[in-house]
Amino acid sequence: MSREKLAKLTEMPGIFMGANAPYEDARTVILGIPMDYTVSFRPGTRMGPMSIRNVSDGIEEYSVYLDRDLADYLYCDLGDLSLPFGNVVRSLEVIEEASRRILEDGKFPIYIGGEHLVTYPLIKPLMEKYPDLRVVHFDAHADLRPDYSGETNSHATVMRKIVEELGPKQVYQMGIRSGTREEFLFAKEHTNLFLEDVLEPLRKVLPELKGYPVYVTLDIDVIDPAFAPGTGTQEAGGCTSKEIIKAIHVLGDLDVVGFDLVEVSPPSDSSERTALLAAKLIREAILTFNSNKR
Amino acid sequence: MSREKLAKLTEMPGIFMGANAPYEDARTVILGIPMDYTVSFRPGTRMGPMSIRNVSDGIEEYSVYLDRDLADYLYCDLGDLSLPFGNVVRSLEVIEEASRRILEDGKFPIYIGGEHLVTYPLIKPLMEKYPDLRVVHFDAHADLRPDYSGETNSHATVMRKIVEELGPKQVYQMGIRSGTREEFLFAKEHTNLFLEDVLEPLRKVLPELKGYPVYVTLDIDVIDPAFAPGTGTQEAGGCTSKEIIKAIHVLGDLDVVGFDLVEVSPPSDSSERTALLAAKLIREAILTFNSNKR
Amino acid sequence: MSREKLAKLTEMPGIFMGANAPYEDARTVILGIPMDYTVSFRPGTRMGPMSIRNVSDGIEEYSVYLDRDLADYLYCDLGDLSLPFGNVVRSLEVIEEASRRILEDGKFPIYIGGEHLVTYPLIKPLMEKYPDLRVVHFDAHADLRPDYSGETNSHATVMRKIVEELGPKQVYQMGIRSGTREEFLFAKEHTNLFLEDVLEPLRKVLPELKGYPVYVTLDIDVIDPAFAPGTGTQEAGGCTSKEIIKAIHVLGDLDVVGFDLVEVSPPSDSSERTALLAAKLIREAILTFNSNKR
Amino acid sequence: MSREKLAKLTEMPGIFMGANAPYEDARTVILGIPMDYTVSFRPGTRMGPMSIRNVSDGIEEYSVYLDRDLADYLYCDLGDLSLPFGNVVRSLEVIEEASRRILEDGKFPIYIGGEHLVTYPLIKPLMEKYPDLRVVHFDAHADLRPDYSGETNSHATVMRKIVEELGPKQVYQMGIRSGTREEFLFAKEHTNLFLEDVLEPLRKVLPELKGYPVYVTLDIDVIDPAFAPGTGTQEAGGCTSKEIIKAIHVLGDLDVVGFDLVEVSPPSDSSERTALLAAKLIREAILTFNSNKR
Amino acid sequence: MSREKLAKLTEMPGIFMGANAPYEDARTVILGIPMDYTVSFRPGTRMGPMSIRNVSDGIEEYSVYLDRDLADYLYCDLGDLSLPFGNVVRSLEVIEEASRRILEDGKFPIYIGGEHLVTYPLIKPLMEKYPDLRVVHFDAHADLRPDYSGETNSHATVMRKIVEELGPKQVYQMGIRSGTREEFLFAKEHTNLFLEDVLEPLRKVLPELKGYPVYVTLDIDVIDPAFAPGTGTQEAGGCTSKEIIKAIHVLGDLDVVGFDLVEVSPPSDSSERTALLAAKLIREAILTFNSNKR
Amino acid sequence: MSREKLAKLTEMPGIFMGANAPYEDARTVILGIPMDYTVSFRPGTRMGPMSIRNVSDGIEEYSVYLDRDLADYLYCDLGDLSLPFGNVVRSLEVIEEASRRILEDGKFPIYIGGEHLVTYPLIKPLMEKYPDLRVVHFDAHADLRPDYSGETNSHATVMRKIVEELGPKQVYQMGIRSGTREEFLFAKEHTNLFLEDVLEPLRKVLPELKGYPVYVTLDIDVIDPAFAPGTGTQEAGGCTSKEIIKAIHVLGDLDVVGFDLVEVSPPSDSSERTALLAAKLIREAILTFNSNKR
Repeated sequence: MSREKLAKLTEMPGIFMGANAPYEDARTVILGIPMDYTVSFRPGTRMGPMSIRNVSDGIEEYSVYLDRDLADYLYCDLGDLSLPFGNVVRSLEVIEEASRRILEDGKFPIYIGGEHLVTYPLIKPLMEKYPDLRVVHFDAHADLRPDYSGETNSHATVMRKIVEELGPKQVYQMGIRSGTREEFLFAKEHTNLFLEDVLEPLRKVLPELKGYPVYVTLDIDVIDPAFAPGTGTQEAGGCTSKEIIKAIHVLGDLDVVGFDLVEVSPPSDSSERTALLAAKLIREAILTFNSNKR
Repeated sequence: MSREKLAKLTEMPGIFMGANAPYEDARTVILGIPMDYTVSFRPGTRMGPMSIRNVSDGIEEYSVYLDRDLADYLYCDLGDLSLPFGNVVRSLEVIEEASRRILEDGKFPIYIGGEHLVTYPLIKPLMEKYPDLRVVHFDAHADLRPDYSGETNSHATVMRKIVEELGPKQVYQMGIRSGTREEFLFAKEHTNLFLEDVLEPLRKVLPELKGYPVYVTLDIDVIDPAFAPGTGTQEAGGCTSKEIIKAIHVLGDLDVVGFDLVEVSPPSDSSERTALLAAKLIREAILTFNSNKR
Repeated sequence: MSREKLAKLTEMPGIFMGANAPYEDARTVILGIPMDYTVSFRPGTRMGPMSIRNVSDGIEEYSVYLDRDLADYLYCDLGDLSLPFGNVVRSLEVIEEASRRILEDGKFPIYIGGEHLVTYPLIKPLMEKYPDLRVVHFDAHADLRPDYSGETNSHATVMRKIVEELGPKQVYQMGIRSGTREEFLFAKEHTNLFLEDVLEPLRKVLPELKGYPVYVTLDIDVIDPAFAPGTGTQEAGGCTSKEIIKAIHVLGDLDVVGFDLVEVSPPSDSSERTALLAAKLIREAILTFNSNKR
Repeated sequence: MSREKLAKLTEMPGIFMGANAPYEDARTVILGIPMDYTVSFRPGTRMGPMSIRNVSDGIEEYSVYLDRDLADYLYCDLGDLSLPFGNVVRSLEVIEEASRRILEDGKFPIYIGGEHLVTYPLIKPLMEKYPDLRVVHFDAHADLRPDYSGETNSHATVMRKIVEELGPKQVYQMGIRSGTREEFLFAKEHTNLFLEDVLEPLRKVLPELKGYPVYVTLDIDVIDPAFAPGTGTQEAGGCTSKEIIKAIHVLGDLDVVGFDLVEVSPPSDSSERTALLAAKLIREAILTFNSNKR
Repeated sequence: MSREKLAKLTEMPGIFMGANAPYEDARTVILGIPMDYTVSFRPGTRMGPMSIRNVSDGIEEYSVYLDRDLADYLYCDLGDLSLPFGNVVRSLEVIEEASRRILEDGKFPIYIGGEHLVTYPLIKPLMEKYPDLRVVHFDAHADLRPDYSGETNSHATVMRKIVEELGPKQVYQMGIRSGTREEFLFAKEHTNLFLEDVLEPLRKVLPELKGYPVYVTLDIDVIDPAFAPGTGTQEAGGCTSKEIIKAIHVLGDLDVVGFDLVEVSPPSDSSERTALLAAKLIREAILTFNSNKR
Repeated sequence: MSREKLAKLTEMPGIFMGANAPYEDARTVILGIPMDYTVSFRPGTRMGPMSIRNVSDGIEEYSVYLDRDLADYLYCDLGDLSLPFGNVVRSLEVIEEASRRILEDGKFPIYIGGEHLVTYPLIKPLMEKYPDLRVVHFDAHADLRPDYSGETNSHATVMRKIVEELGPKQVYQMGIRSGTREEFLFAKEHTNLFLEDVLEPLRKVLPELKGYPVYVTLDIDVIDPAFAPGTGTQEAGGCTSKEIIKAIHVLGDLDVVGFDLVEVSPPSDSSERTALLAAKLIREAILTFNSNKR
């Protein structure tokens, strides 16, 4: 008797819900980036991607918000990137290479962190391809430090590195409520930073963003810890789940070319509702951005 | 020395706060239904009733919202129903029998789940007695599937079974934000379904409901997981605690003939605030519905 | 329909397993003493009695070690003593009064702590009735301080208070592995203290204890934290579960007149295995001591 | 080689972030009051101060809300008060003495509880010094009982004791949603009590409070358990993190002479977000009240 | 660029470590049976198989005990069986069918539960093929009840069902320390039951078992809860990790034809050491039994 | 009033119990090394040192095993080393510098990890000073890989690096039960490796070690996860708490020149008993090694 017959009786766990398209056919690909070694406070985000997959069976493939169903979409889950633990520089190279290949293959990427530093190598190939790239950055923290404890490669410097490479005012930061005075001074000059709120500023800048390729990076801590406690550096005073879900939908009007969701840290949330919320946001992202891909 | 003298020094734990009326005198009776075997994702609701009783001492018997005090009401706690674990069909029979007896005795029932499937046998005797019964259903999920993995007896089919028995448009669903496309199509034809919100739709349909006997079934996951993480299938984007408390009060204008609160799952909430919220909702329910009973 | 018919369908939770004899008929009575305000390190033992009752359904009423069954014994669970929280002196009075009444009624008492200080008022009426009383004390800590932060009423002074009232060398301490130098010097003069081990010393002193009325006080932390993590001041290097179960059986050869099990602290053990072990020890205690009662 | 050279390589843990001013120079002093023995429901607040210090490194010293930085302020952390565990009366004396000394030294005090009863001895020297003192009280519970289980010294009586000493209508209670009928009747006569909300009533009474010395006592349970689950007696229906942060800022218009934040209980919040929120509120308090001190 | 090139950079999570042989080539197959609906106390074993896979990366593929390496073996992980949740009868049919297919394909099966009832349908095809089958049963509980709350299909009846089908004295029970008096009386007549210990009785009966096909069923609760807290019905007084590892090795002298490991319940063990121990036992089982397969 | 008077009322938290000697006078110094970025499985050991300090108040300063009291010893706690998070190479330099200074100052060092890789820079200055240094290594894992995922700086390579620098057969490894085949082959040639057991091999090699300076490195995972679950890579089958305590005492016969205790990971042990055991081992180490220092 062949494996196929048995396979009908079983289900392979550990895959983001329903992600069974072959890579070749998939328009959207999901890739986990389990890196968390530059975090200063509480590690654990390396287990984020796996945790999100594990709970994803707990929600439906159909979104009543969008009246769309994952069953109608072609997407695949590539698993987690293999990284040399503890070696930041080589890890960033491996991440960049993966991002470049996926970009070359014409897929729409959904990356799951991991710590926020991974966004830098992920976005690099996109910045090269699209010099006019805009970045929408949801976060509690500005992440604009020039260095952190002397390190320029850090979760606290990631947006600074991107801004410096991309040029001024191409990054839109929303929900920010934490940083040093220097970061906020830097932001005044070089980014578009909006305090605390997410939905209202997004709607306001939508016209500016139209026509440009947009990369979206979503640090889960932009959401208030009440709704998303499972993250390393929780910062009170954030948005609600409803607002961030709506924000994804609003982004559907733009030409989004890549999306990452980072900093889900399972050990900080024994209820697993942060991972479930992340799974829901990824579902909405697949259903929202899939048809906007270049 | 008799037990009575000693009893003055002690307190019997494991009873819903102050529930010491004899069954014969009680107008309201509380009964736990510790069943959770058809849940697909994360079991644990069988421990819901016990957990709610255990924490109920943490809140007051007086409600400042209503200016009423449990001390002025006659109600009793019957404990948990004894169920044959793993046998769905027989369990449903036992539940239905208990519901029928309580109905015959003219009590106002407050049932604590357990999984949502228990609502079907609980409501059955009421549907027989009141053919014009209306059901107000607070939930994140539509629960309108015809079957789930081939099973027609499931937490995901419970409202479908009720709708099919009760007739079209007698069920009012509020707070719903998850389901399959088929469920929402079914709802369009057969129920009154309101997305996400709870309080506004309730106020809107209040006039329609007046004059009818009303059964209220409250799946704790209608509330956002931030406020009620202790449930098996958390779904982001729900209402707040304040809204659901208010909703109970609004229902006080109707002729409510029965109430259940289901799907509290203690293992998903180490803070126990979900059980505490449930205890508070049950207190408000006793104080609100007690005088409206037929 | 009467409550009796419904009662057949339900079970009252929150009682130690099967404890349904009327107080008048019971030979053994269980009483919880939910006091924990003098503990210096980590509070939580007030929830010990309730937690032990809640999990007690997880074990059998039959003991294969003893080939005896709780179903053949008459015992009742009085619930928890009502205490004025935060008032040590009055609480000790209430506890002593309860102990005196149970003694007068000729019952064999099984007390569940709560912190270890409760043993002092519990044992007081017994010391008055039996001047030749011997005390077997299982504990990781000597509990022989004259005072603790200036307080003479403390979990760390309880055995000192008993020794001073009872007279020298009537207390047998086993499993001890923590204390101040002064406590161990005091022990040399006034108690029989055995380091670390439990079973071997108990067997050794058995002949000395025969013929005397014996009170047994068991601080759960005598057992290694691997087997009983749910206690406030865990101390590595203790005995195993098997050894303490065997120790209870060995005590069956003596004329035991009272038993307490203290310091189970549920918050330190999310697995609940400490409470389950405590429930098992209480079951063995009922089955072992019941027939030895005067 | 001296300690100094090594010290450059190390950091002393266990201090509230950046609190390194010598006591003599500090304008603001932080003191932990680790007392929790009169709580009836779930103990644990004694670990509150330490827990808040431990997580305080997780937030920035700069507040973007106020555009102020702790680095520009002189404040010190005195550690935790040494208390005789279990002795309520003596503990209250020790607390009062500490408060008196800090007041005499002309410092602005920030006290971290512990249970709410500590506010009474903390506020006593201030009531003596400022007979026209006003108290702003954020809490879910009225805390106005004359006694609790017969005890007049209790977390549930603390505001009653203050009101009785201070005189009528000098206490402003906000966010209250739990208590007995008697407490609310007492409040009508003797305090200014506002139900549920925090920010709106505060703004309303601001004119009345201007010109008076004001003591602020903040029970963390005023915030909804979704945002602050780490407390002993969670009460659903509270304010959000955003609202309480804003409330601190609003108080900046007044002449605040002392501040305490009580009832953070780490065991009820494995995510530690309550302690993080508390650390943020203390940061905002230092930055807001520091210059308003008499 | 093809998926293959990307695949080199990634790793597919959710597979038991290194289990990458095609089904056709594999001599050993692993299959998860995520059923837990007849458990009476604390559900959660349905998450056992996934949890064991998730942590399996935490141990080595090489066993220093056996000087063998999984890298030298062909085995595959089929994932979890799809089951109709809540339907016991149909679930047992699906399980039996899977077991029959794997047996027909000549594979050596390693099943991961799930509750213990799954052993009955798993073993059924083996009992048919090998009428002289012997069963080695490691467990804290005898599992010999004729029914449980009236149900004959229960985790508490599983060995009774097997004994009744297989004939007397073909089942060897080890480590047993819990059951009803009736179960132990039944065992005296119909099985070979050894109390508490595991290793000594196993060595004793080894000669009797030689020459027979042997099925091994290992309920994780045979191990003391100190070593394996992650199970639904923990029973103090069990064997150590070292002993059970050794027991697997001892079984290597027999003709083992199938193996299951059941009752790992992740919610009861936040440290995950039970799942890690289970993964280690499965590694040892693959390395021990692989070459003994018929 | 001066800080001194207030100080008498308070206690500074966050210091290892009683560690108040000035650095200049201290013979023993404690230093935390909060590094954990090369761990592949579950991070968290960076919080080890702080966690051990926090719980250290839960045990006595007096050791009844040794009849010695910390109060009679001069030792200080330097806090945690400041490290550039995520930069392995620079972190190792900082650690080595700290170790060198402490060695130059003639102190006996007790280092608390952090991950095991920190032992390499810690031991480096000692290897230079004592070419005949012997290393006693307690661990579940051999840690002898040449590299890990390509990295030579890893927790899995640390003993290999030391062996290669120190020369063959100067390292004694005990309790080992996990590694690759290559590691065990390497051990055969280059180290003295003893499987599983700790106490017996230690006693056996004691004569060989006499007369040499000895560095002791203790990975907490050498102890069975039942006794020490709080570590990143738990490995079943280890020694007991009693055995490791005894092992420290046995080492008292040697000329120990340095000691580290690594890999305590608080997130894996909600009971905190691993940190408590570590605090006890450190107490025994101070009391045992203090007088043996060169």
